[in-house]
Amino acid sequence: MSSEKQLDLLHHAALRVKDVKQAVDWYTQRFGCKVEYQDHTWAMLEFANARLAFVVAEQHPPHIAILGDPSAYGTAEVHRDGTSSVYLRDPDGNNVEILAMAPEPATRS
Amino acid sequence: MSSEKQLDLLHHAALRVKDVKQAVDWYTQRFGCKVEYQDHTWAMLEFANARLAFVVAEQHPPHIAILGDPSAYGTAEVHRDGTSSVYLRDPDGNNVEILAMAPEPATRS
Repeated sequence: MSSEKQLDLLHHAALRVKDVKQAVDWYTQRFGCKVEYQDHTWAMLEFANARLAFVVAEQHPPHIAILGDPSAYGTAEVHRDGTSSVYLRDPDGNNVEILAMAPEPATRS
Repeated sequence: MSSEKQLDLLHHAALRVKDVKQAVDWYTQRFGCKVEYQDHTWAMLEFANARLAFVVAEQHPPHIAILGDPSAYGTAEVHRDGTSSVYLRDPDGNNVEILAMAPEPATRS
């Protein structure tokens, strides 16, 4: 048994904003980051090591997302892009998304 | 000039908690992460790619921290561990810490 603990990946932190475009503009003008996805309800910026998301109040709560197995924590919601996730609340009410990436498409053998 | 934009590092996200020990216990019991620092006012957990901090209301605001040059944004505060930083607010009032690591100690030549 290894004494080194396997570390999980902190996929993104999501901040609440009122205007997604205004937030994307503010961050991309100041910092080295790339727009991975953007519409009027949310956006995802890619930094060197992790991602920063913006969410509007009516759609998503502010949260952090950790890669893992959502089904270990509840009934996972499968999203249109193939990812699946479940939301937990920590003891202080902070939202923690357990996020699984989309399965790789099957390849021909 | 390269067409590839140099990406900045998202050093940590800091969540507000009431009880730092309770938060550290909750996250370390569920996720693969290591305690990098902990006292009763704040803590820093190390994940595979980034860090997650916990802060109490009287000491620090919840924030995200991006590595960069604080002096480019204002008068940097130098902390006891040699790091320096300045806080900005994005258009929605989210706190963004611009964080510089401690300078390397001088080596003899």
